Amino acid sequence: MLGKAKLLKVYLGENERYKNKPLYQHLVHWFKEKGIGGVTVSRGIEGYGADKVLHSARLLELSSDLPMILEVVDLAEKIDPLIPEICAIAPKGLVFTADIHVYKHGKQ
Amino acid sequence: MLGKAKLLKVYLGENERYKNKPLYQHLVHWFKEKGIGGVTVSRGIEGYGADKVLHSARLLELSSDLPMILEVVDLAEKIDPLIPEICAIAPKGLVFTADIHVYKHGKQ
Amino acid sequence: MLGKAKLLKVYLGENERYKNKPLYQHLVHWFKEKGIGGVTVSRGIEGYGADKVLHSARLLELSSDLPMILEVVDLAEKIDPLIPEICAIAPKGLVFTADIHVYKHGKQ
Repeated sequence: MLGKAKLLKVYLGENERYKNKPLYQHLVHWFKEKGIGGVTVSRGIEGYGADKVLHSARLLELSSDLPMILEVVDLAEKIDPLIPEICAIAPKGLVFTADIHVYKHGKQ
Repeated sequence: MLGKAKLLKVYLGENERYKNKPLYQHLVHWFKEKGIGGVTVSRGIEGYGADKVLHSARLLELSSDLPMILEVVDLAEKIDPLIPEICAIAPKGLVFTADIHVYKHGKQ
Repeated sequence: MLGKAKLLKVYLGENERYKNKPLYQHLVHWFKEKGIGGVTVSRGIEGYGADKVLHSARLLELSSDLPMILEVVDLAEKIDPLIPEICAIAPKGLVFTADIHVYKHGKQ
């Protein structure tokens, strides 16, 4: 997957679930099963999305459903066909892609 | 805000303040007031910027003014007019944009 | 470094070492010595790379060699010549670039 590739980012809430496990964990396994090259998950400390509800780690009275950020990297032909299903699995989230150039991916 | 859009990233220090509150919190509220679609804040563990001073979570003797990363997503016509004011509010920070393609933003 | 520039991202494992210190710390110092404009390091909470081994903060039985994410920003002519050496220093990692537009970098 060297050369022109895609970065897919998916933002969702830490408390969102798919069947009986956290949605972000489900997505990591799902990308792995689909043979996607690499996924990294980070937890944000504050943010809001389409519903304009602020989530924050700093105040107990605010919802602490913290933002989770998935960064997914592979070739466009691997990423693009998955996007409709990702949007269906993560209905409340933000999903976008950016064009990147990959110089190294493991011991290639 | 589906289709072609912009990712705006703002990097600043955890200890930077605007009036009497943390700058990153001020910026999140400010973006929300401006009607921007979504903002996510993450805290880095180490880094340096234009002043070349290293900030790190790992050593007490280093400054612990950790990097804060704001990711802001909306259409270019919403993001672009705000950039001069963002640069004025965050005078020490790094501010950049990248072109992205948004596939989902909440229950659209 | 205003205007057209590059974002370089390097993903590696928290436990990877270079000589006798963590690889991510080595890279931050190395970028600083090379005069690169800014570097931010974040720690992910879960992920997998080219070797398809899942690393996670959530389960003790999984490897906890958590993903470290370096974000490096400068002009293409500063970033590009360093890429072969970065790929050699971080042989297991993911290395990619994206085109960005920088509006502010410190007190310029």
